This record gives sequence, structure tokens and C-alpha cells, in this order.
Amino acid sequence: MRAVALGGGHGLHATLTALRLLTDDVTAVVTVADDGGSSGRLRRELGLLPPGDLRKALTALAGPQAWAAVFEHRFGGTGALAGHAIGNLVLAGLLEVLGDPVVALAEAARLLGVTGRVLPMSLEPLDIEADVTGLEEDPSTVRRIRGQVAVATTPGRVRRIRLHNAAHRDQPPRACPEAVAAVRDADVVLLGPGSWFTSVLPHLLVPELHDALVRTAATRVVVLNLVPQPGETAGFSPERHLDVLSEHAPRLRIDAVVADADAVSTPDRLRRAAKALGADLLLDTIALGPAGDRHDPDALAECLRRAVGSVRGR
Amino acid sequence: MRAVALGGGHGLHATLTALRLLTDDVTAVVTVADDGGSSGRLRRELGLLPPGDLRKALTALAGPQAWAAVFEHRFGGTGALAGHAIGNLVLAGLLEVLGDPVVALAEAARLLGVTGRVLPMSLEPLDIEADVTGLEEDPSTVRRIRGQVAVATTPGRVRRIRLHNAAHRDQPPRACPEAVAAVRDADVVLLGPGSWFTSVLPHLLVPELHDALVRTAATRVVVLNLVPQPGETAGFSPERHLDVLSEHAPRLRIDAVVADADAVSTPDRLRRAAKALGADLLLDTIALGPAGDRHDPDALAECLRRAVGSVRGR
Repeated sequence: MRAVALGGGHGLHATLTALRLLTDDVTAVVTVADDGGSSGRLRRELGLLPPGDLRKALTALAGPQAWAAVFEHRFGGTGALAGHAIGNLVLAGLLEVLGDPVVALAEAARLLGVTGRVLPMSLEPLDIEADVTGLEEDPSTVRRIRGQVAVATTPGRVRRIRLHNAAHRDQPPRACPEAVAAVRDADVVLLGPGSWFTSVLPHLLVPELHDALVRTAATRVVVLNLVPQPGETAGFSPERHLDVLSEHAPRLRIDAVVADADAVSTPDRLRRAAKALGADLLLDTIALGPAGDRHDPDALAECLRRAVGSVRGR
Repeated sequence: MRAVALGGGHGLHATLTALRLLTDDVTAVVTVADDGGSSGRLRRELGLLPPGDLRKALTALAGPQAWAAVFEHRFGGTGALAGHAIGNLVLAGLLEVLGDPVVALAEAARLLGVTGRVLPMSLEPLDIEADVTGLEEDPSTVRRIRGQVAVATTPGRVRRIRLHNAAHRDQPPRACPEAVAAVRDADVVLLGPGSWFTSVLPHLLVPELHDALVRTAATRVVVLNLVPQPGETAGFSPERHLDVLSEHAPRLRIDAVVADADAVSTPDRLRRAAKALGADLLLDTIALGPAGDRHDPDALAECLRRAVGSVRGR
């Protein structure tokens, strides 16, 4: 089974960890719009793709081993390196030396013993911009908020996001060709979980990636978040997540929506929202531990297997 | 043949590159007293062994390949990372995560596909201190100069160096036990070429390493520099290099001294100085190219083979 997971951050880490249990042929297609933390510093200082989400995807596919731990280690102290993840610095070095991000990521994957692939959604750094309401006295006033960190943490209500090529704002974001091919040739593609506006939806705003997602013969699965995210989607119901997805990609049909049963208070509404996208709803216990804020890789893998099976059995 | 090369910087790079052509069993024992450049910044910021000389030894043993190029790549620009070699950052990360420098260097060697070993001469950062004359009006006034960079670039005349444990100046420098064992069990040990006071002699000032060098049954070979080094040994003749070696380690006997024929203007004097240490002198053309400031790996390897053979044939 050829699986492609689109996303970034912890959400993508969760789906990749689960997919590893199902198949060796996993491709991660990763957001490159981060402008915060170690990634943001490297991006600004060196003009490279922000490496953090790429690093997290690599170590998720590598599983627990020595180099993955080194990649995830962050320098401490109070100096110039404080907070930089080693893997971010290694990826920055590979990007500078090898030039082509696809080649650089393949080399990092080789080092980490990863059998799957990690691809950036674009070969150029991208910028997120959002229309946000609720930031002024008149709650309907729309303000434009720029940058992943600003959008992810806005106290306002995000209405819509746009994506720009960071270096050429007049040009649309261009997809990584290998990522487009991976989506086109996949058996299953996953969207979510994760920060909805800043990690999940950006893929739909890269025109070639959007078209590949619309046209692929793969089973399209959306994995919803376990807990409400503070900031960008505070107070959003599970069905509102699907509505927002549809607003940003009206032509995209979905085959299955996967959610944790305990995280859904109105399953009928969610089932209707899924149906509107063409999708079956699969509710299951896929959260781990008492806090319920992390996915159980085994349970998620089993749920994804069922999602793919149910679609094929239609 | 079990070969051990002691040194640092470009000189050690040259001997390791040559030794690779002779045997798979090469151990580098590397100075850890650097306080300049990327290494000095990492040492000060993170309190780790200065990684630069260790990195150079690793990439010399790795030979030309992709990761070695990445290790040697330095970040450009004008930001916080400018000038840091990627390999230094990777080694710093491995040292922080894995703790034991011997384990960290073994892991780096594995990444680079190195068959030999790179060991630090001490598990703790060391400081060089030198007695230097010629810095004041009275040319016999002795000034104490501290730090590898300051000693290497002094316009005065270095008379003697001392080595301190950087964190505990009252304690003598402690050897890396694996480095002591490697010297003890070697068939051949090489000292030099390199910055004489700051890369070659420091090994003789670590008591356990000194004792191992004195007692080992290995053939002891000194490789002299091709060109006079500005700074610390400006104006030193080849025989003066041997005298200084003897002054810092009077009990050490040498079996062979290797020098480039074109770099020696008074071969008879050098032969006498070598004989005083117990050594044969081997003069050969071992410099590369018209500048003559780099060793030809093939010629140096051949010369080392002859040096070991001539000693065994005695």
C-alpha cells in the first residue's frame, strides 16, 4: 500500500508513526511555511526551507533509535545555538551543500535508516496569511495576519488563509513535483490531524498539490484532532473543521473521516458534515492515555486500515 | 598494521590520508586544546570538547564522500551560525546527547563510514600555556601566553608549553584511556606534522599518553613540516623542531624521522639531531605541487612504509 500523509508538526508525526505499522511505502508531504523557533531562525538567517517539520517527519519514520534522538536534541544554554534542534542544523547543512531539497532529505533519510520518504510540499519557503475577525471592537472587522506563528496563536477567529511564495509574493506557491507525483500515485492519502489552518489546509492552497488531491484515485482520509486546539481553531467543533476544509477546497471529495469517539460530542452532526464531503465517518477510541491528547499509534493504524478497507468495500 | 597518528589540524589530516593507503587499522589521537574559530565558540558556549580537530580527523579517514563534504561545509552569511562547520555542530550534538566522547566519535565514524577510529587525547577540554620571549624590549623576558590561538600566532619565540585541564587547572591533563591503549598496542605511532607547539607537542604533556609513547613497542616516527610555520615556530629549522620535541619529552626515543628533501637545507645537521633521539633520517620528495606546502598522500604513505620497514630491518 502506497500511503501519503500531508501535514506538519505533531499531527503528521502521529499519522506517520501509525502508517509505519501498516506499510513500508510511506511518503510525508510536509508544510514549509513555519516562521517560528529554531526553524524560523534558520529560515531567516540562511534563506532555506524551514527544517523543523521536515525533521519531525524524518524522525517519526525513523522510529526510536540513536540518530533520531540526536536529531531531536536541542542545544541548551543561553548562547547563539540555544534552542536549535541538531537535526534542523544538519538539514540546513544538507540543504546548503546539496542544494536540491529532495536530494538533501533523501540523504537525511538514509542517515536515519528511514525506508519511506519525506518531501517538502514546495521547494521554496512559503508564507501563510490569514483573514481574522474578532481582533477589533467591531467583531466583523477583518484583519490580515501574516506568518505561521501569528496565525496559529491569534486570539481572533481565522476565516480564511492564503499561501504565498515567500520570495516572490506575486507568484503562486509551487509544488514539489515529487510530492505531486506521490499523491497522484498513492493508494491512500491522509489529511490531518494537526493545526488546521497552519499545518493541514496549506497543502490545499498549492495549486498543483490541490489538483493532484482532487484527481488522485487514492482513498482520501481526513483524521480529525483529538482535542480543541487553542489559538487558531479555539472553540471549533469537529464538523466545523470539515466545513473549513471544504471552504478552502470546494472540489475536494473525501472518502473517510476518522475521529476519536470521545472527542465528538455530536456524532450525528459530524456524520452529516462528512457525508456532505462524500465521506463515511469512522468513530473509534484512538486517543492514548488519560489526557487523551495524543494518538495511540496502534489504534490509529487499525482505524486507518478499516477506513481504507471500508472504502474499497463500497 | 595497527597505526596511531597523534596530532591535530591539517597535519593530522595529511598523515591520516596517507595511513589509510597503508592499513585499515588507523587510530587518530587528537588534540582538544583548540580555543579558536567555530571550535572555540562551541567550547565556550556548550562546555564541550572543541570538535574541529576531531571533525577533520574523521573526514580525513572517511575520504571523499557526500557526508564528509557536509561535515566540512561551513555556514555562510552574517548570522549566529556563520563560520560554524556542520560537522562541528553534529559532533557537539552527539557529545551532548551521548555524553561519552568515545561513544559519540564512534557514532560519527559510523555515519561517515570510517573504518578506523578517532579518539580525543583527553576526555576533557585542555588549555595550552606557553612561555614566550621576544615580546618585550628585553629579549630575554619571559611572558606567559594562554590559549591555542594566542600561542599559535604569537610574534614572540615560544620556549616551552604546558597543558592544563581547562576546568580544573590544578589537576594534570588526563588521557583518554582508549588513546593510551591504542598507543600501547600499536605497531607504528606517528608524531607530526603540524603546528609544533599547539598540535604535536601537547600529546607529550598528557602524562599517561607520554608514558605510553615512551613504553610502547611500536615504531615511533616523527614527520616534519614541509614549510616553516608562521607564528609559533617562525624561523625554526627542521633540527630545532626535534630539539624542542626532546626538551618537552627527554625520555622519548624516536625510530625514524621523515622529512621532505627540498624542505631541508642542512641534511647533515638534521641527521645528527635525529641520531641524538635514536632515529634514522628518511629524506624523500613528499610534498605536492609547486607550492610544496601540502603532503602528497601517496608519497608520504610510501615513505612511511619505508620508515617502518627500515626500523624493522635493523
